[in-house]
Amino acid sequence: MKTTKKIVLPESEMPRYWYNVLADMPNKPLPPLNPKTRKPITPEELEPIFAKALIEQELSTERWIEIPDEVRNLYRIYRPTPLVRASGLEKALDTPAKIYFKNESVSPVGSHKLNSAIPQAYFNKIQGVTSLTTETGAGQWGSALSVAAKHFGLALKVYMVKVSYEQKPYRKAVMNTYGAQVFASPSDTTEIGRKMRAQFPGTSGSLGMAISEAVEEAMKDPNTKYTLGSVLNHVMLHQTIIGLEAEKQMELAGDYPDVVIACFGGGSNFGGITLPFLRHKFVEGKDIRLVAAEPASCPKLTRGQFYYDFGDTEGYTPLLPMYTLGHDFEPASIHAGGLRYHGAGSIVSQLRKDGLVEAVDIKQKETFEAGILFARSEGIIPAPESTHAIAATIREALKAKEEGKETVILFNLSGHGLIDMTAYENYLSGKLENYDVPQEDIDKSIDEIKTLQP
Amino acid sequence: MKTTKKIVLPESEMPRYWYNVLADMPNKPLPPLNPKTRKPITPEELEPIFAKALIEQELSTERWIEIPDEVRNLYRIYRPTPLVRASGLEKALDTPAKIYFKNESVSPVGSHKLNSAIPQAYFNKIQGVTSLTTETGAGQWGSALSVAAKHFGLALKVYMVKVSYEQKPYRKAVMNTYGAQVFASPSDTTEIGRKMRAQFPGTSGSLGMAISEAVEEAMKDPNTKYTLGSVLNHVMLHQTIIGLEAEKQMELAGDYPDVVIACFGGGSNFGGITLPFLRHKFVEGKDIRLVAAEPASCPKLTRGQFYYDFGDTEGYTPLLPMYTLGHDFEPASIHAGGLRYHGAGSIVSQLRKDGLVEAVDIKQKETFEAGILFARSEGIIPAPESTHAIAATIREALKAKEEGKETVILFNLSGHGLIDMTAYENYLSGKLENYDVPQEDIDKSIDEIKTLQP
Repeated sequence: MKTTKKIVLPESEMPRYWYNVLADMPNKPLPPLNPKTRKPITPEELEPIFAKALIEQELSTERWIEIPDEVRNLYRIYRPTPLVRASGLEKALDTPAKIYFKNESVSPVGSHKLNSAIPQAYFNKIQGVTSLTTETGAGQWGSALSVAAKHFGLALKVYMVKVSYEQKPYRKAVMNTYGAQVFASPSDTTEIGRKMRAQFPGTSGSLGMAISEAVEEAMKDPNTKYTLGSVLNHVMLHQTIIGLEAEKQMELAGDYPDVVIACFGGGSNFGGITLPFLRHKFVEGKDIRLVAAEPASCPKLTRGQFYYDFGDTEGYTPLLPMYTLGHDFEPASIHAGGLRYHGAGSIVSQLRKDGLVEAVDIKQKETFEAGILFARSEGIIPAPESTHAIAATIREALKAKEEGKETVILFNLSGHGLIDMTAYENYLSGKLENYDVPQEDIDKSIDEIKTLQP
Repeated sequence: MKTTKKIVLPESEMPRYWYNVLADMPNKPLPPLNPKTRKPITPEELEPIFAKALIEQELSTERWIEIPDEVRNLYRIYRPTPLVRASGLEKALDTPAKIYFKNESVSPVGSHKLNSAIPQAYFNKIQGVTSLTTETGAGQWGSALSVAAKHFGLALKVYMVKVSYEQKPYRKAVMNTYGAQVFASPSDTTEIGRKMRAQFPGTSGSLGMAISEAVEEAMKDPNTKYTLGSVLNHVMLHQTIIGLEAEKQMELAGDYPDVVIACFGGGSNFGGITLPFLRHKFVEGKDIRLVAAEPASCPKLTRGQFYYDFGDTEGYTPLLPMYTLGHDFEPASIHAGGLRYHGAGSIVSQLRKDGLVEAVDIKQKETFEAGILFARSEGIIPAPESTHAIAATIREALKAKEEGKETVILFNLSGHGLIDMTAYENYLSGKLENYDVPQEDIDKSIDEIKTLQP
């Protein structure tokens, strides 16, 4: 009998609830703090910025949270996504391991980011919010939110880091096509933006400045709210739809993963695929490994430390408990823009602290070698971010070969690379660089946040 | 009860045979002619250029041709593709029409071209061929063939029209990532290429030159064959998998199309979705309309004439019976590069002559308006080629609204536009031009081919 290549779930089997891991964690994450008082921030303090339902989800310890029909309807444009047996990659590696991947690249914007963009737009809409703001670096989150905002009739302003705005005009065009307004940040539409432009003429912008602009814009108007595409608990919650589908599909495939792997930026796709499997560990004592693959140039989980730190570089957000490199840490300009973030979300950070998730750091060249092998054996060009998960998968598959084990590996293909072909071009023409981080750089930026501790 | 958004076929339901419309056509297409003798070309004369199995398929009148297991295995990377109810577009148009689309954009290269690239690579491989050549304009076909050639272990040389090579570096990077060699045409690797470069220094190339280079390269070596991504009968044959799946999916949806619509370049995606439905007309006398949507700037089916003409601009191919604008016709540089071809394949041309297919021509701005509406209502940014099908669909849906009819429309979304965002950028910034063709231009280039007739 032929092995099935794709394991497809019928729409009727799409999950009706997101999984909230806070219900099952042995140690809950420490609370976010108000940076001024250093006391746990209250829901009310967050209301000028976020929709109420999202704040509730952020703090909820309910195990299952219902996915509204309106959200499920929009999910159905691309969900359930296929689970694929990577038989071509297995053959290329000549490994006894069985490799599966969840293909989130089939989303119309090419990545998993829509999974949270849709509910964030929806919960804002039903609260009567009329406009959203957000920041975007590489543009994946901005693109996804543009689709969702348009669907629910919300205006959207995206503050895009100036250097990306100039270097990635395609991404901007995608957001414009979906109807969003995109500003190069720092812009002249906000006070902080104008201040930054005056203070640093010719600046190429930063994610920190862009966040500040988007937050300022939301604070100005009670009908405008801010949204974020990773790091926060409610984003992890929405993304669990990935793992909940994969759980059913692995069962249909008649296999169970020994190890689940995803790339790691702020944690949204990693949490999305791994947390539902972590539940099996909590509930049934399953022996399963969860591996986060991060860039060697931004190694918060492997070489960072656990502290309270700001989510942005400017220090406008609440203080979050996280594995961090320090909010002033400047990651090298690797092509995996979505992984260039100094800290890990609170949930994953706590799990890492408790020894429940592992992490590996991988250099840029190894990730692109993995991406090319995957493209040539499976036909899909992976996003630079996703190549980290593939490289970690290949390491596991080769270990399985060495040990003669039929290890079952599941990884998340968070997106395709068709809008990031300059990265592959650089690799193929030998121009791609490997970046490492001297320990003293990490020590230095971590030293700076020690004063922030409560 | 909720309407299902996507109608998904299980892999086990993927068709096992392609449909060959030549078996059922009331009038078969006239034979291709040897340009020197003006006599029907023999299979033997084609063997230096094409694989034998593909020549057999080109001339076969068998109704059902089996899809080899190796081809079906590779199809399973992305097939069956979803049939989608365009409920968002219906709502945006406030139409009683029911709109469905077949989503071929989920292929890993983003278009339907893989459907023929896979079997063409396969049939060459089993004959012992070791290398393939082809030409590519916009790069869709070249990308698809790169994936298929790599899978079957064939070397591949792609001659890419120089202007596209320079303007679309991403497409070139896609082909390189999959392992193909890409040359800007005219190149210095062929005799004809060197001749062209000497004769026209600084030329930006043409599809005609690129075809000549790819054919010359194939003629030089018995283990190298040439491949083509549209126009020919065997390409239409392979593409019928689109319509054969759609046929089953429409049945699952409990609907039957009144009209089937696709964009039209050489005919590959149009033939692919419509021919299996045309069979119902032949066999059961079904009342169904088939509409080809072509650019107003390259209107071969609406304003061309039926003659024998060359497939390329240089005159190296056999003479084919086709609706043509004349092989010297120079289409305006619209963004839908895949539709900039002077002639229609022989099968569709004969069907058009016999009144079995309709055609509409649409100006560039209307197509991008349609593309933007589709992106904002369905979440998918369509390829510039596919926007023609969407514009024609919108015309039908608005007619249905006027007439108060519940017309059922099925169209083919041949690809997504994520690698063509400059086109949308131009549209959104008001830089997109409308092109029309003066009748005397068409008359002039058609006059020139009258001497070619047997």
